[in-house]
Parts: sequence; C-alpha cells; structure tokens
Amino acid sequence: MLTDPENPPVTRRFTERSADTRAAILDAARARFAADGYEKATIRAIAADAGIDASMVMRYYGDKAGLFRAAAFADVDLTGLGAPGPSGELPDMRELATRVARVLLQNWDTGENQVQRLLVRTAFTHPEAVAQLQRFLDERLEPPFLALLGDDPDAQLRVALVFSQTLGVLSARYLLGLEPISSADPELIEATLRDAIEVVLTRPMRASRD
Amino acid sequence: MLTDPENPPVTRRFTERSADTRAAILDAARARFAADGYEKATIRAIAADAGIDASMVMRYYGDKAGLFRAAAFADVDLTGLGAPGPSGELPDMRELATRVARVLLQNWDTGENQVQRLLVRTAFTHPEAVAQLQRFLDERLEPPFLALLGDDPDAQLRVALVFSQTLGVLSARYLLGLEPISSADPELIEATLRDAIEVVLTRPMRASRD
Repeated sequence: MLTDPENPPVTRRFTERSADTRAAILDAARARFAADGYEKATIRAIAADAGIDASMVMRYYGDKAGLFRAAAFADVDLTGLGAPGPSGELPDMRELATRVARVLLQNWDTGENQVQRLLVRTAFTHPEAVAQLQRFLDERLEPPFLALLGDDPDAQLRVALVFSQTLGVLSARYLLGLEPISSADPELIEATLRDAIEVVLTRPMRASRD
Repeated sequence: MLTDPENPPVTRRFTERSADTRAAILDAARARFAADGYEKATIRAIAADAGIDASMVMRYYGDKAGLFRAAAFADVDLTGLGAPGPSGELPDMRELATRVARVLLQNWDTGENQVQRLLVRTAFTHPEAVAQLQRFLDERLEPPFLALLGDDPDAQLRVALVFSQTLGVLSARYLLGLEPISSADPELIEATLRDAIEVVLTRPMRASRD
C-alpha cells in the first residue's frame, strides 16, 4: 500500500500506533515475566513499564495468560545451524554439534535469550511455558537438524535430547548458579557440550543399542 | 540408653511421639510441595495431610521456608556408584557412566525421587531449593566420582556437568513432558545418557581443549 509519508491516512497512523503499543507491551511483559516470574508479574506493573494504561493491555491480550502466550515465543533464527560452509559443503555432525553448542551458549552468555530464560523458569509451574518450549524445539531447533539427519528414525529424539541436556547445563550455569558450572571457563563448557551433543547425534540408536 | 520397652520413661515416650509427628509432617510436606509447588503449598494443608494442627507444624519448623529446608534434602545413598564389581575391581568410567545413568533414570521412572522432583520444580523460583540441589550434588553424587577420578583438576566440573545434563533430560521427560523424550523407550534414553556421561567424564579438559 503506497502512501505519502508526510500525510499518512488516519487509519494507517492508528494501526502503526497500535503496533508500536503492542510491541512496547510485549517487550515490557518479557522483561517483567523474566525478572519477577509468572506468578508475581502483574498486568499493572507491565502496563506501567510500557507507559500505558492496564486496560489497554487487557484490551489487546485479555488476561495474564494471554499476554504470556503472545510474549513468550523464542523466535530465534537457527537456520544457520544447517547452512553450507565456506566451500559449499553441508556441515557434518561434528560441525553441527560445534555450531549448536556455540549458538546456544552464546545466546545465554550474552543475555540474548531473555525469552528462553523466561520459558525455562516458568515451565515447571506453568504449562503454557512448556508448550512454548516445545514450539521452540519443533519450529526453530529441529528443522536444521532434520535436514541433515536425513531419514534417521530417531532424528527427533536426538534433537530433543540435545535440547534438554543443553538446557540442563545452561540452566545450572545461568539460572540456578550451581557450582562449579557457573564459575567455569565458558570455552570449557562449550567444548564439553559439543562433545556430548556429537555423541547424542551419532551414537547407534537401534541396531546395537548397547 | 537402655530402657524397659514395656515401661519407657515419660521423656522417651514424648520424644518418640515427637519424632513420629515430625516424620509425618515432613512426609506430608514433601508430597504437598511436590504436588502443589512451593508457592501454592500451605502449612494448613500440610498439617491436615499429616493429621495434626497447623500450630504444631509452626512450632517445629517456624514457617514454610523452614519446613521446606527440613523436608527437601534428597538423602539418596549413591555410594554404590563407586563400589567394586563382583571380581573386586573398581568401576572404570564406562561402568560408572552406566551405573549413574541407570540409577538416576530408575529413581525418576519409579517415582522414588520425590524430593529431587520437588527441588527441580522449585529451584527456578526459590533459592533454598538451589541450595539443596547443590548439597545433593556435593554430598551425595560427587563423592563416589571423586574417589574414582583421582587427582583430575576438573573432576568436580565433570560431575556437575553430568548432573546438570542428566537433570535436563529427566526434567524434560518426567516433569515437563517434552516430546518425543517423554514417550521414548526408557532403555534408549538410558543408553544415550550413559554415552553422553562417559564423554563428559573422559574427554580431555585441559591439554587439548579442542
């Protein structure tokens, strides 16, 4: 839709303002849910953080559960995990393990994983957070792995095990503060995760189970 | 202290009844915290489950936090992890990985891990639960590993990584219900955990980090 940027139509200005408002609400909700946890976060506090009235938040999202659903999808682009290398070859399992360990650890180390932290913290008490973790697994993490694992009947199980063991380590380090994981050299954590992930991706699952 | 079992002194009877009461309170607390989560569990409900008055619970444990501290230590005997095999030899890392994967998975699969479930569910919102997880790691899981890992300077880090990656997988399966981990063959989960644990126990940590 082409419009004169100096004189946008009223409807468009309204829609844009609404989109800005909703983005501000969702940002405030993610930060507040992450800081306070689901139970203690309130629509009133989130609205105040976003600089708008609580009634507007309820108008858009209904209630706290609806707001959580809208705010808490870990919309991370992980297609690069399966991308060809500089000479055009697809990553082997060693390279895939290296990439996923690096990306997940860096996301947590730099604090770019606000939504994932929120989901993990909330999942044990709030089923909607489990649904969003499953969605992240299915829609973001799994596709690049499945493309490379071919017709392996245990491909999805492998990815889910990679995901959950990595979440365990990252939660211990960044959310719970268990020692000595929290104070360990991040390169050591990354290299160890990589090796464990490679085993989960490559070990025989069916023919010789033991 | 020798006493006539038919005619125990009054003080002893009082102490025994007190011990029974306290054991009943702690059992009820573990079950209620595990079922309802820390926030929603109430001293009133725990007292009712134990068949006593709430004031008695507060007399023994002060408040909910004090009751949680008393109830939530995962007092599991794991010394068998490092025990010699039938021909007297100590377990190698492969055997140690096999044993720990089996014990932890069986504890969760048979529901014998009520306290561990409670600690994991509570840890993300309640620091006292983190302290108890750390205590389980330090006092129950670590000793048999340290005895076998000798003077490895990364021994504690290895054990903590084994613990956290295993917790991630067990939580995904038994607490969160992530798929396809939850519906997978337990033998497949156990064998995969074993292989990942073996890598964490044996990979070179210092000399050749990559």
